[in-house]
Amino acid sequence: MNHCIPFTKMHGLGNNYIYLDMITNTYTLPPYPQFAQRLADQSRGIGSDGMILLLPSETADIQMRIFNKDGSEAKNCGNGLRCVAKYAFDNQLVSAARFTIETLGGLVEAEVIVDENEVSEVTVDMGEPRLLRGQIPMQGNPTEQAIQAPIQLKGTDYQVTAVSMGNPHAIFFVEDIQETPIHTLGPLLADGHELFPEGANVGFVESINEQSFAYRVWERGSGITQACGTGACAAAVAAIVTERGSKDVPITIHLAGGDLTIVWESKTNHILMTGPAVTICTGTFYL
Amino acid sequence: MNHCIPFTKMHGLGNNYIYLDMITNTYTLPPYPQFAQRLADQSRGIGSDGMILLLPSETADIQMRIFNKDGSEAKNCGNGLRCVAKYAFDNQLVSAARFTIETLGGLVEAEVIVDENEVSEVTVDMGEPRLLRGQIPMQGNPTEQAIQAPIQLKGTDYQVTAVSMGNPHAIFFVEDIQETPIHTLGPLLADGHELFPEGANVGFVESINEQSFAYRVWERGSGITQACGTGACAAAVAAIVTERGSKDVPITIHLAGGDLTIVWESKTNHILMTGPAVTICTGTFYL
Repeated sequence: MNHCIPFTKMHGLGNNYIYLDMITNTYTLPPYPQFAQRLADQSRGIGSDGMILLLPSETADIQMRIFNKDGSEAKNCGNGLRCVAKYAFDNQLVSAARFTIETLGGLVEAEVIVDENEVSEVTVDMGEPRLLRGQIPMQGNPTEQAIQAPIQLKGTDYQVTAVSMGNPHAIFFVEDIQETPIHTLGPLLADGHELFPEGANVGFVESINEQSFAYRVWERGSGITQACGTGACAAAVAAIVTERGSKDVPITIHLAGGDLTIVWESKTNHILMTGPAVTICTGTFYL
Repeated sequence: MNHCIPFTKMHGLGNNYIYLDMITNTYTLPPYPQFAQRLADQSRGIGSDGMILLLPSETADIQMRIFNKDGSEAKNCGNGLRCVAKYAFDNQLVSAARFTIETLGGLVEAEVIVDENEVSEVTVDMGEPRLLRGQIPMQGNPTEQAIQAPIQLKGTDYQVTAVSMGNPHAIFFVEDIQETPIHTLGPLLADGHELFPEGANVGFVESINEQSFAYRVWERGSGITQACGTGACAAAVAAIVTERGSKDVPITIHLAGGDLTIVWESKTNHILMTGPAVTICTGTFYL
């Protein structure tokens, strides 16, 4: 064995990464994009959606960098943020339950919920939702919102609510989410519909009650996925602006990969997302 | 954390399993088929082609049991055997470089090659090749061999050599393996051609010289794979019976996933397969 690389594999709603703690350990690593591809490859690596590095930060309590399976660097990832927060607290890289994480997409506030000396859930501040067409971006008057706006897909009339959580979401409320043809409707808007010039993540929401909604998503560039954190936030925002739910009241979004709880805090106008973070395994990778 | 399960992930030519050492460790595991599925799942487990258990044996030096990603139990796996042999020697479960491994498919002899205190390659005795049509099974006189036998596929004339290494292989020698339409020819024989009532693994072999052959395979039930150990043996046997290579001379088979070296030993009439075994990582899985 030449080189021993300590690692931790974690997941949030099935979204899984290899976490390397570059605060505690001194690593000599190959270039990050190539090493992420190697770790993520199931055949000759561990197998994951990518690699997340935990680093010291000058502006926050810790810093995270996310590399996808293809080696590209990502700005942010809600499921990854929760795992970073759990790792940092469980391994005493931070001392308080509330702390800040520096990401390529900006500073994020996190708060851990501790259960039997270990973090079970994490709340992440996802920032302010943006509703103006110009902010999505969506065709039409850029200073107006698109709430239950009419849209025709394959000759059928639908109503769409547009929300940006840093990325564009087109939300449709449906009667029965199991019966909704996500495979055929998703691709129509995800890439290149005239209403959404930059595409959109296409979300379908079934109302169970004022605090509970089922959500399925066709992600721009990925298709159907198990869990989309910003999508869950957008679904809750859409529920509130269409008067199906209320601000300051926790809303549970049921995703294919598990549940997330969303609060739209009126005091700050921020969206708080709470969900699980799980340690799968720890070990040593032989480089 | 409830339950800590020590594991090792290894691969042979990219064929990767989670290895659990039930000789050194005392485990309390869930039922094996379900646990194999859980470990092999990349989202919430480690990610692998399956799980291999190392157990004490009454008839051999050690015993191995193989569970595929879908939970089913496999009889044998050449790539897995090499990794089991490396694990056993590196972790001093055996004391000599030659030892026996009990599998569901029978007893197998293995010999490790040690490089800097660690096993780098393993030779596995793959037993006797069977060439009679009745042994393959293949249509025609059951006591005759099928060596360069004529066969028509999609209106084109080919010659096929049939070899059983416990499973049926149909071998075709081709001029240029990169130009061979494996995707279209493979499925014609793999499942249900009249000549091969139980189907066959369809192998294409390009001769480089008397000791070196390129091999690509369409596996029955799996399609194109990176590495098929019994297929590499069958390719070498087919090369020898068609006088492209010789017994007792090592033949290197170049597979998509890497190289295997095959010797057909005239003294014993057995096939010896030598190839790499690699430890990817060791760690603790949290149940």
